[in-house]
Amino acid sequence: MTRRGEISKAMARIKPHVRRTPVVQVNGFGLAYPVEMKLEQLQHSGSFKARGAFNTLLSAEVPEAGLVAASGGNHGAAVAYGAARLGHRARIYVPDIAGPAKIGLIREQGADLVVVPGAYGEAAEHAALYQAETGAMQVHPYDAETTVIGQGTVMAEWEEQGLVADTVLIAVGGGGLIAGALAWLGKGRRVVAVEPETSCALHAALSAGAPVDVEVSGVAANALGARRIGQICFDLARAEGIESVLVSDAAITAAQVALWREMRQLVEPAGATALAALMSGAYRPAPGERVAVLVCGGNIAPDPFGEG
Amino acid sequence: MTRRGEISKAMARIKPHVRRTPVVQVNGFGLAYPVEMKLEQLQHSGSFKARGAFNTLLSAEVPEAGLVAASGGNHGAAVAYGAARLGHRARIYVPDIAGPAKIGLIREQGADLVVVPGAYGEAAEHAALYQAETGAMQVHPYDAETTVIGQGTVMAEWEEQGLVADTVLIAVGGGGLIAGALAWLGKGRRVVAVEPETSCALHAALSAGAPVDVEVSGVAANALGARRIGQICFDLARAEGIESVLVSDAAITAAQVALWREMRQLVEPAGATALAALMSGAYRPAPGERVAVLVCGGNIAPDPFGEG
Repeated sequence: MTRRGEISKAMARIKPHVRRTPVVQVNGFGLAYPVEMKLEQLQHSGSFKARGAFNTLLSAEVPEAGLVAASGGNHGAAVAYGAARLGHRARIYVPDIAGPAKIGLIREQGADLVVVPGAYGEAAEHAALYQAETGAMQVHPYDAETTVIGQGTVMAEWEEQGLVADTVLIAVGGGGLIAGALAWLGKGRRVVAVEPETSCALHAALSAGAPVDVEVSGVAANALGARRIGQICFDLARAEGIESVLVSDAAITAAQVALWREMRQLVEPAGATALAALMSGAYRPAPGERVAVLVCGGNIAPDPFGEG
Repeated sequence: MTRRGEISKAMARIKPHVRRTPVVQVNGFGLAYPVEMKLEQLQHSGSFKARGAFNTLLSAEVPEAGLVAASGGNHGAAVAYGAARLGHRARIYVPDIAGPAKIGLIREQGADLVVVPGAYGEAAEHAALYQAETGAMQVHPYDAETTVIGQGTVMAEWEEQGLVADTVLIAVGGGGLIAGALAWLGKGRRVVAVEPETSCALHAALSAGAPVDVEVSGVAANALGARRIGQICFDLARAEGIESVLVSDAAITAAQVALWREMRQLVEPAGATALAALMSGAYRPAPGERVAVLVCGGNIAPDPFGEG
């Protein structure tokens, strides 16, 4: 079956467990054209990650040893949420840069949480070790088929909701979300990958001709800070052809503030990264080109009502 | 023309200036049933008030002396926003309980702002005096036909977006929003008025058989703290028949926290008041009854990125 076919099946599989997130067309942000937006931060656990997590958990027999995941924070929160709903044990490794808001989210779901020093890469090493030792099922945050297929349901759903854009801007970390979008859309619409200058694994891979390790830092590092782009994403990005643009941390913060000021949407830096490409001019649509921005996550720190 | 006909005309009149706010169906909040929601806090200036303001400004010739409005804060922000867009002068009176976030919003729009001690009632007295002295056009926050007709576009728009609910819960302050909803819906759906125990002008009026003065206080006072319900609202509430329920300040705060925790929507207490009626059990739907909650405003203090 094609990945597009798999995404259609995943839509039905995860439907009882995920939220159909709202869409809106917005004039604002100092832009001369309207922007279609999908507000995926309203998803359970605060980001699109719940889609891939549920698709993975519902696609295989979960062993007695339960689940294990490594995550910058959002994927861990989604796996913990899914595990709690479906009655599985879950061990989640996160780096300390995940921050107290995301760590609190994971803990609230009752997962067995381990915070390790470093960034996502360090957490991933611990998760691989735990998997090997215990036989737990690993739920990969971006470079696994069931994850990518689950994330692809965002774009399938958006098309059902009447998306008209010629071009969709998507923030990229490890590449699971944009891989899912490319798997669904093929060449049907233009996809623009937006990465922080401080965490740009896809951009570096496209320049090098293959996935390479990058340094990660900056305001969005706990969501977009993958050390190396996923192979599935890289292959799709080359096959389908995408435009890759970079934005500064300052541009991300400006977009984050604008989302609050103009729409009362409080999101984390990663959730504002795609919009930052339009506001900063890193991506300039051609005259008449209709654009859409996927707002992918809202787990801001400090949590307005939380501990951190 | 009927008010329903006027609302249809207002839809077209204000369309270039207002946002078609998103709708979403949500499972959560500890409730055994789904809730349809319209996220009107994404409206320009952060609440539904922009609708009534634009409808008023576009329905009459604005005099040289400009506009004057009294407001707990949200209406003032909406009038200031509308005045700036349409090129009018605006004098806005707000009570000090409006708080720094709402006051900042009004100031940013370049309005001529006067902060007076007290609550909305005191600001209204100043606005009436200014109107008499200068000939400025008053934009009433709730008890004027053009305001009510403008607010009625929320419900007209929601029905266009496929609302299915039998029952719609709406927070009430001076009653402009619920009056607009009643004017549009007639007896087509059940409307439930939700007020804080600490600011309940409609509830008191329905008990007394006529609008009466009430004391106002509590967490939502700067949005729902009208001293006396509007006559238009009162007459419609009696004619169409509505259910009126009260919620505690603690229930409002719990709903406000839940909107963040479960949907990443950060709203002001008034914006969470209608949901509080479901979460607290102040309103219990019958088996099979489908319910909807209008989230009406997001101008929380302190502003996450603001001065207050």
